[in-house]
Amino acid sequence: MIRNAVIDSLMNRKSIREFTEQIPSEEEILTIVRAGQQAPFAMQLGSVIIQRNRETNAFNAPIQFIILCDLHRMEKVMKVRGWNREASNIHSLLFGMQDAAYMAQNMVTAAESLEMGSCFVGSALYMSEKLREDCNLPDHVFPLVILAMGFPAEDPPVRPRYPMEFHLFQEKYPDFPEDSVKRAMDQMDRGYLEQNYYKKAGFMIPLSDKAREEKFTFDNYSWTEHISRKMAQWSTDPEDLLEPLRICGLSLNEKRD
Amino acid sequence: MIRNAVIDSLMNRKSIREFTEQIPSEEEILTIVRAGQQAPFAMQLGSVIIQRNRETNAFNAPIQFIILCDLHRMEKVMKVRGWNREASNIHSLLFGMQDAAYMAQNMVTAAESLEMGSCFVGSALYMSEKLREDCNLPDHVFPLVILAMGFPAEDPPVRPRYPMEFHLFQEKYPDFPEDSVKRAMDQMDRGYLEQNYYKKAGFMIPLSDKAREEKFTFDNYSWTEHISRKMAQWSTDPEDLLEPLRICGLSLNEKRD
Repeated sequence: MIRNAVIDSLMNRKSIREFTEQIPSEEEILTIVRAGQQAPFAMQLGSVIIQRNRETNAFNAPIQFIILCDLHRMEKVMKVRGWNREASNIHSLLFGMQDAAYMAQNMVTAAESLEMGSCFVGSALYMSEKLREDCNLPDHVFPLVILAMGFPAEDPPVRPRYPMEFHLFQEKYPDFPEDSVKRAMDQMDRGYLEQNYYKKAGFMIPLSDKAREEKFTFDNYSWTEHISRKMAQWSTDPEDLLEPLRICGLSLNEKRD
Repeated sequence: MIRNAVIDSLMNRKSIREFTEQIPSEEEILTIVRAGQQAPFAMQLGSVIIQRNRETNAFNAPIQFIILCDLHRMEKVMKVRGWNREASNIHSLLFGMQDAAYMAQNMVTAAESLEMGSCFVGSALYMSEKLREDCNLPDHVFPLVILAMGFPAEDPPVRPRYPMEFHLFQEKYPDFPEDSVKRAMDQMDRGYLEQNYYKKAGFMIPLSDKAREEKFTFDNYSWTEHISRKMAQWSTDPEDLLEPLRICGLSLNEKRD
């Protein structure tokens, strides 16, 4: 593959969860947020809260960004123009999530280039009640993800990804031959095992089904088993996420009033 | 703000909708897709179809990527591990969209660094029925967005964004003073007018409400009016998007069987 400064930066990225004491400067923060803004958008629906309290920030990071899917701000603009938002909440959410996510990924990339590290906290999706209270979020603002950031106090290896044959498809979606599924699983599992990822973290997702017997140890528990346990056992009730959306005034199957 | 090769690349990005005859090389394509893969993920739920037929590609681009929120592939992996996906569709979609979007934005950034240009086609959200047919998509694969790409045959200016005070909030969400809303609107509207954006495109969103009289011309029709008309007039029925999701086997309020 081709290498240049940008590609190198993208390829070397890994999540950082331990940070030094160094506080990012205002210029560094501004650069990161400004570069995030310049990501492509449909309707500029992404906005950002910055928080600087290490005690309460994820991973005790010196800064964290709450990445918002922000329809309230849009509605403010529309009101000045004499319009109300009539676009459905699902429409607004699917476009707003994209605006916010493209922006957030640019922030990740900009931070890497300034020798900073970051980690997304996906559980923000479930935290809208708390975040609304902590941050005075108005209705129609949905916290998509938290992005913890600072200067790295750890240097983990780059994590593996699926083989290209299992990721990029030519013209149409393929029928996966079983051996390609197994090769992909093997690449992920060997990769994480070689890095001692779960052993170092000391974490295996417990089996919630009492009928299943734990057959894994840290010598063979790896990525595919870990992710499978998440997707088989966690968040099985759609209300777990429909309710946080509803709390933000974003019921997904109702027409707007 | 701080500048370096990565920040410059992010800051100079603009959507490209006209492409030269040059076909991106296989190495360029591989580099872009591989850099996309290395974006952070929750569960590696993003996958990509590449299409090379200029006649049918968006903006007649030499290549286009269909960015997929791919739960089918995850389910294939889980099956080998003896698990079924029980996580709700809304959970899978909100995490899958993020995985796919972070990946797609890395692809945009990688392409920029190779002097290529790109444009997202957001209407893919509505096209799942057609894309399922054209691309043999199995159930539980949702096409999030199309990314048209190639070498630029146009050099548009960088587009404006909201002022920082309207985008980055300190610790909590603010009450916007009315003048900050107006300043933000002015910055966007003046910016697009100075670039003759809508005049060049020759496009104003028509007023669907017969009671409203068209008071804009290309001399004053700009970004805030344009986006307001979209969000006030388009996609008001949630079924417009719930149905494309349902067609992909992703009903959002049902528990998984």
